[in-house]
Amino acid sequence: MPGNTFGTVLRVTTFGESHGRAVGVVVDGFPADFPLDLAAIQHEMDRRRPGQSKLVTQRKEGDKIEIFSGVFEDRTTGTPLMAMVSNTDMRSRDYDELAQLFRPGHADFTYFAKYGHRDHRGGGRASVRESVGRVFAGALAKQLLAQFGITIKGGVTQVGTVCAQTRLWDTVEDNELRSVDPASVAAMRAEIEQARKERDSVGGVIEVVAEGVPPGLGEPVFGKLDAELAAALMSIPAVKGVEFGAGFAAAAMRGSQMNDELSPTGFVSNNHGGMLGGISSGAPIVARLVVKPTSSIPQDKNTIDVNFQPRTVATRGRHDPCVAIRGVPIAEAMVALVLADSLLQDTATRGAREYFSPREYLDYDSATGARRRRLRS
Amino acid sequence: MPGNTFGTVLRVTTFGESHGRAVGVVVDGFPADFPLDLAAIQHEMDRRRPGQSKLVTQRKEGDKIEIFSGVFEDRTTGTPLMAMVSNTDMRSRDYDELAQLFRPGHADFTYFAKYGHRDHRGGGRASVRESVGRVFAGALAKQLLAQFGITIKGGVTQVGTVCAQTRLWDTVEDNELRSVDPASVAAMRAEIEQARKERDSVGGVIEVVAEGVPPGLGEPVFGKLDAELAAALMSIPAVKGVEFGAGFAAAAMRGSQMNDELSPTGFVSNNHGGMLGGISSGAPIVARLVVKPTSSIPQDKNTIDVNFQPRTVATRGRHDPCVAIRGVPIAEAMVALVLADSLLQDTATRGAREYFSPREYLDYDSATGARRRRLRS
Amino acid sequence: MPGNTFGTVLRVTTFGESHGRAVGVVVDGFPADFPLDLAAIQHEMDRRRPGQSKLVTQRKEGDKIEIFSGVFEDRTTGTPLMAMVSNTDMRSRDYDELAQLFRPGHADFTYFAKYGHRDHRGGGRASVRESVGRVFAGALAKQLLAQFGITIKGGVTQVGTVCAQTRLWDTVEDNELRSVDPASVAAMRAEIEQARKERDSVGGVIEVVAEGVPPGLGEPVFGKLDAELAAALMSIPAVKGVEFGAGFAAAAMRGSQMNDELSPTGFVSNNHGGMLGGISSGAPIVARLVVKPTSSIPQDKNTIDVNFQPRTVATRGRHDPCVAIRGVPIAEAMVALVLADSLLQDTATRGAREYFSPREYLDYDSATGARRRRLRS
Amino acid sequence: MPGNTFGTVLRVTTFGESHGRAVGVVVDGFPADFPLDLAAIQHEMDRRRPGQSKLVTQRKEGDKIEIFSGVFEDRTTGTPLMAMVSNTDMRSRDYDELAQLFRPGHADFTYFAKYGHRDHRGGGRASVRESVGRVFAGALAKQLLAQFGITIKGGVTQVGTVCAQTRLWDTVEDNELRSVDPASVAAMRAEIEQARKERDSVGGVIEVVAEGVPPGLGEPVFGKLDAELAAALMSIPAVKGVEFGAGFAAAAMRGSQMNDELSPTGFVSNNHGGMLGGISSGAPIVARLVVKPTSSIPQDKNTIDVNFQPRTVATRGRHDPCVAIRGVPIAEAMVALVLADSLLQDTATRGAREYFSPREYLDYDSATGARRRRLRS
Repeated sequence: MPGNTFGTVLRVTTFGESHGRAVGVVVDGFPADFPLDLAAIQHEMDRRRPGQSKLVTQRKEGDKIEIFSGVFEDRTTGTPLMAMVSNTDMRSRDYDELAQLFRPGHADFTYFAKYGHRDHRGGGRASVRESVGRVFAGALAKQLLAQFGITIKGGVTQVGTVCAQTRLWDTVEDNELRSVDPASVAAMRAEIEQARKERDSVGGVIEVVAEGVPPGLGEPVFGKLDAELAAALMSIPAVKGVEFGAGFAAAAMRGSQMNDELSPTGFVSNNHGGMLGGISSGAPIVARLVVKPTSSIPQDKNTIDVNFQPRTVATRGRHDPCVAIRGVPIAEAMVALVLADSLLQDTATRGAREYFSPREYLDYDSATGARRRRLRS
Repeated sequence: MPGNTFGTVLRVTTFGESHGRAVGVVVDGFPADFPLDLAAIQHEMDRRRPGQSKLVTQRKEGDKIEIFSGVFEDRTTGTPLMAMVSNTDMRSRDYDELAQLFRPGHADFTYFAKYGHRDHRGGGRASVRESVGRVFAGALAKQLLAQFGITIKGGVTQVGTVCAQTRLWDTVEDNELRSVDPASVAAMRAEIEQARKERDSVGGVIEVVAEGVPPGLGEPVFGKLDAELAAALMSIPAVKGVEFGAGFAAAAMRGSQMNDELSPTGFVSNNHGGMLGGISSGAPIVARLVVKPTSSIPQDKNTIDVNFQPRTVATRGRHDPCVAIRGVPIAEAMVALVLADSLLQDTATRGAREYFSPREYLDYDSATGARRRRLRS
Repeated sequence: MPGNTFGTVLRVTTFGESHGRAVGVVVDGFPADFPLDLAAIQHEMDRRRPGQSKLVTQRKEGDKIEIFSGVFEDRTTGTPLMAMVSNTDMRSRDYDELAQLFRPGHADFTYFAKYGHRDHRGGGRASVRESVGRVFAGALAKQLLAQFGITIKGGVTQVGTVCAQTRLWDTVEDNELRSVDPASVAAMRAEIEQARKERDSVGGVIEVVAEGVPPGLGEPVFGKLDAELAAALMSIPAVKGVEFGAGFAAAAMRGSQMNDELSPTGFVSNNHGGMLGGISSGAPIVARLVVKPTSSIPQDKNTIDVNFQPRTVATRGRHDPCVAIRGVPIAEAMVALVLADSLLQDTATRGAREYFSPREYLDYDSATGARRRRLRS
Repeated sequence: MPGNTFGTVLRVTTFGESHGRAVGVVVDGFPADFPLDLAAIQHEMDRRRPGQSKLVTQRKEGDKIEIFSGVFEDRTTGTPLMAMVSNTDMRSRDYDELAQLFRPGHADFTYFAKYGHRDHRGGGRASVRESVGRVFAGALAKQLLAQFGITIKGGVTQVGTVCAQTRLWDTVEDNELRSVDPASVAAMRAEIEQARKERDSVGGVIEVVAEGVPPGLGEPVFGKLDAELAAALMSIPAVKGVEFGAGFAAAAMRGSQMNDELSPTGFVSNNHGGMLGGISSGAPIVARLVVKPTSSIPQDKNTIDVNFQPRTVATRGRHDPCVAIRGVPIAEAMVALVLADSLLQDTATRGAREYFSPREYLDYDSATGARRRRLRS
């Protein structure tokens, strides 16, 4: 079955293996005549790129993205954009012994069980390198969303046992951990370095917030916005859980506390995380995802080989001790793709309504500069 | 956009509003010539049904499901099964004043923002009543999965601040809270009754476990099994978070602890929750979902009306003080649907492989009685 | 696989067998807040209904359509519309002997080969009765299209060897053959009556024309408007071919003759049938489909039974001698569904463009009363 | 909307413009562990390639296909195959004056109307060059089908007014017109050369036959095999009509003549073209498509420019006088893709049936060497 495609109106198909010739993406359904900011796209690629600090993998990847179709004179044509990055600096020999072994925590065994034949080098399709295409497509989506006044930001809220106590979003790109809490950076860094010293890795939590999302996005009952976001975020390698707004804390809350009241200027609080009944409410979308500790660690572990015989394996190669850091731009990209797709989906049926139902109108929001749909009062 | 359809090979489309004429479902893609156990289907419907104890809503719903197509002489024909339940005992007058108001915590405002025109009575499509079709379809899926040796069980692991300390699955249907821990039932019940006394409601957590799932289900990279499950579970009303295996606890774990080792008889531990790289591993699938406290509570809350003027509202009508209890069969149904769909999806491409690749074979598992795919050693 | 769903944004799922409890449809993705003309819908149902004259089957079907969801106070809510017709006047005993036999020309053998188990009575899902849901959904689509100034008309252009020589569309509903050429009606009727006398049936050709279609509908390269229309029309029972504009005659034409020139007021001729490169051109969409002679004829024919033994069979029951006549409203419905879906699809991406690209504008067409998109000159 | 993807289980996404950097394709859902015959793939590419004789365009295209992903050690991995051909020998200057003009017969106007902004050089996405990806994917599909004993052949049955009188399939690749009738080749060639001399072009008809197709493929009622084939063939540039079996001739036939009788060894005749009720019957699939005369002709024609002002235009550049010839491998590719997809789709639900329904079995066909599904007698 074809599982490598994502989205309904804005549709993304990624291809390529970690140590194959290239990794890339086809983006279909993007509106025509859109002026692309190519530098901004490359900037997003760079944020995802390994080798930026000691806290992430030292694999050097140029990640210079090249666009092969769908753009003419720097504007989109409405036809598919294919973009890819050639693979370089691949040390496939690091992986030779893995051809016959399944690394604990990795997808080696499950890919073998499903496909029989696999490209074992560097995780193949299961590698984080697959996210190159997601980040490219997400960068397009961000530019489209910006036209509607929608912005997306992400940061790290937990590393190992250290949790952020505040959300200072402006500081996120100032620290190499992308922590939302500058006061926690030292402790987070210490936790990562301690783990690395012990040939180990740590997990983390990422939070992504989307602001300026108009009410009405999301398609109930199975195409709910939170369902789409959950699938998108869970499709990122190493993610083991997703929550919105109050999230798992809602279990211990009372309804009187959880229910967000409304005032004429919008919702007073945001336990609901910006979505009710799977439809955006106008409040910021708040999503959180947990990233497990990096599976690749240089410790001997028990496993089996392709003949189901017991073996031990330790992962060599260059790896992130805390993959949550590089996960931030990937999570932002997935949120951007879902929102852009939802926006276009909503346009499909809502746009038609303007012909027969004058109940809503477009309004210029002087605060944000964005055009917003509003209901007539 | 059409958001009311779920699934790829096994496809479910639900229809109907809480206080309309009927709620129902069309199931398409179910294999032909399957002998249905109609009593078992009705049993699942009854588990979902309100009015079973003081802890759930007192609305009486017959929930007698009727099948209109796709079955001939008690076997499926491979054509769409349409089944529905007529709505009775609707006290729509309870909702008259809500036509102009948005209840906090409900989807009233967001449906209004999206659609302009809505059936305000009892939540319309956003009502839990919509799950009638999910549970019917899930019951079909469970019967299909049973033929492959796959079983699904669900239970409540948290109510308010009370958490289950053990997992005694056999006791779940013996207590009206569906708690997996009989020792915690009294405290859970006390928490619910205290909330009700205070005109309030409580949240909870549901765990669903699928056993006997063969390795190899799930379609990377966007059609990952955990991504599909996350979307399915998040599409249930009131769910605010989903996690698998170690889930959010993975943030504070080390890789050396998180990575599950393999032995010739399978995985030694199950922090991964039965999926690696989005593909099932053969270990049990373990999913957890948080259900927010019921939004309908008889307390005055601030809100606005359709003219954006401030108002107050309290929800009358009959409602569950803890909707997690009735959520158990719904969550099981969604897991069953995803697994049955994944099984059929996997069959599509893997089945073809038997013609050119003799690397795998079918084997009869004497322990479980199920036929399983195995790789030749 | 689920083959009973049609459409991308406007999505139609039909269910039900000819002699089961009911036939019906779920329509999802229809815009909200649309005021339905229920009488106009029933009128379309009546046009499809058998028993209207001696030239069509005498089976009496009330075909009174009932809507079970998705409509509130006579306006759509944006949620799925489920509508169905209960089956009455079924003479299933006519079909008893067919349980073990395959009728030549019917889908009996192929359904048996695919599904193993089938509802043999009256053709099951392969019966023209399945089109009840298509015509209902098509009636909705027609009402939506009318808001955009798009109208659809269909008629019979060939019956047996008799071909229409003109296109007098206003006369179509005045003759019970739905011929576009009143002068040919007598000869067409004679051909049908001669066939019936000889216990035989005749084929025919239907033409459907859509006017007012704005340029720009259709999604290249696989979602071309003509590809979608071809699939839609070919999905109607008994159709063996589809063509657009010059159609098969184009083989014998020269490019200089085929190419339609453009003038400032539009295309000068319409050999292209309203689509170029799979995108609508603004010229009328012209589609033609051939309907084979009714398979059910009361003549003994050689066949086999389910044990592959030779047998003979003649079809009893009540059948149309020329099914093309009743095929007209069905073909119109399918064209309407494709166009409405294409319109909504186009809106998804084009609508977004208004935010960043002011090259086009909406204009009121004083001739037709419709609002049309125009490109700024 | 994303229209550049085709197929359900075997999914093909093409990208690239005629005069952009490259044209290519992503194929997803192809079974894993399949040993690819790369030379056979290139052979299909060469059949599609221009410049092979005086009767086709003289544009030289290497069409050397390169695979970037999804293959490891010459076997498929089950992950997406991306393959592309870089564009060379592009004389874009031939098209400079077309930036502001719409060529009659081309998609220039409609792309402009839809997208506002377009790559006008050489037809962009509407160029036959887009078919590179189709033919690559079709070559994969043919290799898969061959494992099931299914073969596909195509040929030209009409050029201008010259119709083939016989079907001598073995001779097709021996004549540069790919005519199925060697006796008609001279007349066909004369018709093309006469047209070219008159700066004109001619149309044609292609027939494609698939043999060895097992009964049971195709998904009623909207996913009918003939509906899928019709869409696939109509999506090829310049095609204006599609028919199966008797096709449009069925209009003038009687039911007694049209209905194909069955014998214990299969269907006695094949007016139905291998499909009944949209499901394959075991008889050969017979499809016919009409290709309009090439739109690019060096004659002055009336048109308008982007400002809707009258202009004249003649197409320079190098073009096929009869595009039907090169259309043969493209049509074969589309039929192969639909059949491979249908086979995999059918496997999804039918394969599951083996677990609970032993009514069918696999049998080795000694005549063809293929494995076939058979129903137990």
